[in-house]
Amino acid sequence: MSEGIELLLEGSVTTPRGFNAGAVHAGVRSDWDKLDVALLCSEALCAAAGVFTSNRLQAAPVVVTRQHLSSGQTTAVVVSAGCANAATGQQGHENAIRMAQLAAARLGLDPHDVVVASTGVIGTQLPMERIAGGIEKITLSPDGGLDFARAIMTTDTKAKHIAACCANWSIGGAVKGVGMIHPNMATMLCFLTTDAAAAQPFLAAALKEAVDVTFNMIDIDSDTSTNDMAVILANGAAGGPAIDVAHPEAPLFVAALTAVCTHLAKAMVDDAEGGTKVIEARVEGAASPSDARAAARGIVSSLGVKTAVYGHDPNWGRILAAVGNSGALFAMERTALYLGSPDGKELCLFREGAPLACDPAQAKACFTPHEVRFRVELGVGASAATAWGSDLTEDYVRLNSLYTT
Amino acid sequence: MSEGIELLLEGSVTTPRGFNAGAVHAGVRSDWDKLDVALLCSEALCAAAGVFTSNRLQAAPVVVTRQHLSSGQTTAVVVSAGCANAATGQQGHENAIRMAQLAAARLGLDPHDVVVASTGVIGTQLPMERIAGGIEKITLSPDGGLDFARAIMTTDTKAKHIAACCANWSIGGAVKGVGMIHPNMATMLCFLTTDAAAAQPFLAAALKEAVDVTFNMIDIDSDTSTNDMAVILANGAAGGPAIDVAHPEAPLFVAALTAVCTHLAKAMVDDAEGGTKVIEARVEGAASPSDARAAARGIVSSLGVKTAVYGHDPNWGRILAAVGNSGALFAMERTALYLGSPDGKELCLFREGAPLACDPAQAKACFTPHEVRFRVELGVGASAATAWGSDLTEDYVRLNSLYTT
Repeated sequence: MSEGIELLLEGSVTTPRGFNAGAVHAGVRSDWDKLDVALLCSEALCAAAGVFTSNRLQAAPVVVTRQHLSSGQTTAVVVSAGCANAATGQQGHENAIRMAQLAAARLGLDPHDVVVASTGVIGTQLPMERIAGGIEKITLSPDGGLDFARAIMTTDTKAKHIAACCANWSIGGAVKGVGMIHPNMATMLCFLTTDAAAAQPFLAAALKEAVDVTFNMIDIDSDTSTNDMAVILANGAAGGPAIDVAHPEAPLFVAALTAVCTHLAKAMVDDAEGGTKVIEARVEGAASPSDARAAARGIVSSLGVKTAVYGHDPNWGRILAAVGNSGALFAMERTALYLGSPDGKELCLFREGAPLACDPAQAKACFTPHEVRFRVELGVGASAATAWGSDLTEDYVRLNSLYTT
Repeated sequence: MSEGIELLLEGSVTTPRGFNAGAVHAGVRSDWDKLDVALLCSEALCAAAGVFTSNRLQAAPVVVTRQHLSSGQTTAVVVSAGCANAATGQQGHENAIRMAQLAAARLGLDPHDVVVASTGVIGTQLPMERIAGGIEKITLSPDGGLDFARAIMTTDTKAKHIAACCANWSIGGAVKGVGMIHPNMATMLCFLTTDAAAAQPFLAAALKEAVDVTFNMIDIDSDTSTNDMAVILANGAAGGPAIDVAHPEAPLFVAALTAVCTHLAKAMVDDAEGGTKVIEARVEGAASPSDARAAARGIVSSLGVKTAVYGHDPNWGRILAAVGNSGALFAMERTALYLGSPDGKELCLFREGAPLACDPAQAKACFTPHEVRFRVELGVGASAATAWGSDLTEDYVRLNSLYTT
């Protein structure tokens, strides 16, 4: 953690000044009784940026939000949970626009200044009457951030929110997503707010930089959703000149944003559908940043690795097989594999291209902590990356074999 | 099936004339009591070709076999099951060479004319004394093909073998592999024999062509093994001029080889670790063959699709999400999705870019057969491909969380 950044675990998207939020139960899914429609609104027009799913099947709200954010500005966010509004054709597109219009009417805004997002089952239409009724009833307040974080959940079991406070401004965030998680570009639904004044190009670059080393480095089930988006709103309520790339606080802003995204990304992995553990894979000595990223993410995405971690089975050959599958270059004679021990030290199992003799009980012990850590040295360069993934359990299978029915 | 090809379900690698095989229990893994070392030998030097894993971490036997097959000729195959001899350094490399030498001594051959293969746990050394003792004891016979197929199994529950008989020659095959299966190039261990006389360049091209539409189109768990190989031996015992690309029987040979590989590939999926179903995905109207392949394989590889099939949950949006994830081009307004009905007909759920009203019970019924079929029309071209995958079950997780321990 950089100096000058304080993480507030109870913080949320309404921690930064000038943001209000609220949520209601609208009944988007008739079998759910949770909060499912939410609004987030800034008291002033915000500089804004977003990153979106790389899935070629982009949900209607993704398409509409990309259009609305093309101005680099927005004021509010409306979200519904339970129905993804993806693969829903022209009607789905009109429904996404209508959601923005309903939120704009409720908040007295131009519909183009509203970000719209949905999450849930693919291929069904939004129940627009219920959503309209829900939006009408939402009361916004500066304490509404936690309700907002709860309302965007689907199979999540915990609300995921945080804020990072710096001297004069803060960054708040909320995220949802515990399945169909292998983000590429953005991920799941993530909403970030800040009362810092920020120049839009800097804001967009900072968001991309933070997302690349956080959300884009996690994996639950190797599926990239149709609805992924991460959006940041900067309302400037903290005053002062807008932070841009030349501003002295620019590195602090990127560090704080990265800290918020890291916390939220790991919270997603920790709440993975059926998951019992967090796997952290660190790859060093890679020939390029993209090789390091591919290898690290390859490890945490491998079903062989995920199931071995779940079963405390020190089948470490699967870690190297996953690196081999990633396509990353390595020099076998300089490749090494380390497991994180429960005592905080490391156990080396493979060095100079060959396995080392080791006590199987010691290797097994490295698979027992809640957070299991692997480090691989590729021996061909100076690039490094870290990725996080969940384990794969019988409960993941159970949850996902019965989602719509 | 092409005319003139008869599939023999009891056929094996010793169905073609002039091939002998045998296997023993050598004790490669001390906790297994199955056959685990096998030999296959032709009575004459064979034209031969192989395809190998795309995993950058290539097991020692893969490295050695690639060298031995560079001549385009071989006579025999030696296989051990229980230890992959992968990530085993210089000692592993020497052990793979030693396995070929032991087999060559037993059979009176040059070691360079022996293909060597191993499968099992990664990162442990082969127990060479037991393997030497095993090879010494193997008795080869023209009826040994089934024992050969049994000996190469690891977590497989069924031996997988077949032969295709044509007028004057036949093609036999055996395969193993039910986990760490997402072949790319070759796959798992597959051994093919034929008594047809075949020119080596034609044989290599025919093998690649057959593997590309069969083994390279299946998925169990998206992991590509370090040890994958498919090898074909053609001993010419049927006589006549060697089949080459200009020979009138060339198309029949490719068709028969593809039929053998299709049977073996589907047998692997059918025996998938923990699997209960076979998913067949057909993609049509793709812009290119590679797009069609990526989309079809993307569907059968998606954990969301696999778990939905397991649970008979008609969550068909995940099929389209998987297509979107594959990167294949599609025209949403011409995209359509069909489920295979138990009555052999099709149920259309999505057409012209939008979902169709359908009876959920009818959709659910399409998820109940042992073989579940999906067909997707992408609307942008004339390319098509078919892929096969297993479902994902609690038993897969259980089996894979306790493999080495």
